[in-house]
Amino acid sequence: MQLVRFGVSLPRSLIEKFDKLIKRKNYPNRSEAIRDLIRHTLVEEEINRDEIVIGAIHILFDHHKRELTDKLAEVQHDYHSLIISSTHVHLDHDNCLEVILSKGKAGDIKTLSERIIATKGVKHGQLFLTSQGKYLD
Amino acid sequence: MQLVRFGVSLPRSLIEKFDKLIKRKNYPNRSEAIRDLIRHTLVEEEINRDEIVIGAIHILFDHHKRELTDKLAEVQHDYHSLIISSTHVHLDHDNCLEVILSKGKAGDIKTLSERIIATKGVKHGQLFLTSQGKYLD
Amino acid sequence: MQLVRFGVSLPRSLIEKFDKLIKRKNYPNRSEAIRDLIRHTLVEEEINRDEIVIGAIHILFDHHKRELTDKLAEVQHDYHSLIISSTHVHLDHDNCLEVILSKGKAGDIKTLSERIIATKGVKHGQLFLTSQGKYLD
Amino acid sequence: MQLVRFGVSLPRSLIEKFDKLIKRKNYPNRSEAIRDLIRHTLVEEEINRDEIVIGAIHILFDHHKRELTDKLAEVQHDYHSLIISSTHVHLDHDNCLEVILSKGKAGDIKTLSERIIATKGVKHGQLFLTSQGKYLD
Repeated sequence: MQLVRFGVSLPRSLIEKFDKLIKRKNYPNRSEAIRDLIRHTLVEEEINRDEIVIGAIHILFDHHKRELTDKLAEVQHDYHSLIISSTHVHLDHDNCLEVILSKGKAGDIKTLSERIIATKGVKHGQLFLTSQGKYLD
Repeated sequence: MQLVRFGVSLPRSLIEKFDKLIKRKNYPNRSEAIRDLIRHTLVEEEINRDEIVIGAIHILFDHHKRELTDKLAEVQHDYHSLIISSTHVHLDHDNCLEVILSKGKAGDIKTLSERIIATKGVKHGQLFLTSQGKYLD
Repeated sequence: MQLVRFGVSLPRSLIEKFDKLIKRKNYPNRSEAIRDLIRHTLVEEEINRDEIVIGAIHILFDHHKRELTDKLAEVQHDYHSLIISSTHVHLDHDNCLEVILSKGKAGDIKTLSERIIATKGVKHGQLFLTSQGKYLD
Repeated sequence: MQLVRFGVSLPRSLIEKFDKLIKRKNYPNRSEAIRDLIRHTLVEEEINRDEIVIGAIHILFDHHKRELTDKLAEVQHDYHSLIISSTHVHLDHDNCLEVILSKGKAGDIKTLSERIIATKGVKHGQLFLTSQGKYLD
């Protein structure tokens, strides 16, 4: 990984505010904080352009509804080529959180996510999209 | 306005991607694009911390509902100390867009916005918060 | 405007929580609150599908930079067919807020917004998209 | 779980648009779609009020940086009372995605997330907050 170094000019008042923020957020230095801002904006771009991205579908449900588990498994098999893995957490006696990790075109992952979230018995669901990290060195 | 200049190190692959993005977004140079990312993150902080901010409340409604106009005027007068101005646009024969600019603590503006948006007859409304720009030089 | 009435079934615990929320947000009744949720989700769809929408571009800048005002006017004239109106507010001795209202395809408004926000001297800018309200009766 | 049934009035044009949307999103009926909208808005409220919530911290990193793995483990142990589990996915030869599930006050999870994301070597990270699902029956 080859580093490129260049100069940035900022008004004093702005850099003083930024320094306070990055200290509070525990960044080791300005470069690391600026790299993070840049990566964040590049990831947003990647998602908007329907490239191959990573999706984490988070769903909350009551595991007592046995048919639901079957229905969720069925949907996941229909889209098995998109799905990487799923993690299941028992939140309390009734409630489960499942995080289904997937990889594919942003649009396809959105479709899969909508089908899962619309399943009767899923209390709440949300999709989170991020990058594969390929160029974010 | 005093400028501070400092060096930033970025991996080559990352800066190449970033350069493409800022060209597409018409930034004159890297410094300007990085300043924007920094200001954007500072504005988010300001809003989260309930400081004095600027709010733009956007509402869509049908101006034929005369009582609605009265009710909206009434709410705005109740909160007149928060409100700067409002702009009204006739979108078509029936629909109006009104943008109500306000200044105050983020929490107070949210309360005002919720009251306006909840008014019967307002088809759709959303609040947009931004900074007063004081330290964003 | 013809009203359609239909029944909705909700678990008691959910409707109790919802009733508290809509009371706090000053909705007159459940129907109005549910209408708002539905309109909100329809507006999001409209924006995602690159239909004709309304854009409010909010920018913060220091009006002492005279060239900036010229540059902003120039960009707005390049895209005059998209722009409806602009409202200017003097926030303090130095800072101005300008809200530029526009109407067009979501993608075109985003391009215009990016050009305006990338202009050197604009401290901060954000785009807010909403519906024309045509079908949100 | 006791169901409550009540009537909702919507303009015909609005319900027609909504019916198309819920069909496209595979909801079995209007009640299920409206329940989802209500749960979604309640979850947002819960997060804003700093209640006990579930956080999923998503990070991208290059697993070749051995010190990074140690540093990430260290941070997670400092906050072990918040953390439920973590799932690790090998995206390609270099890149890993780790999803760290946590439970706690929204503010505490944000602090943990900021510390993890600010760690040198983490390419990109984002926090996703959701509900424990307790009252979302």
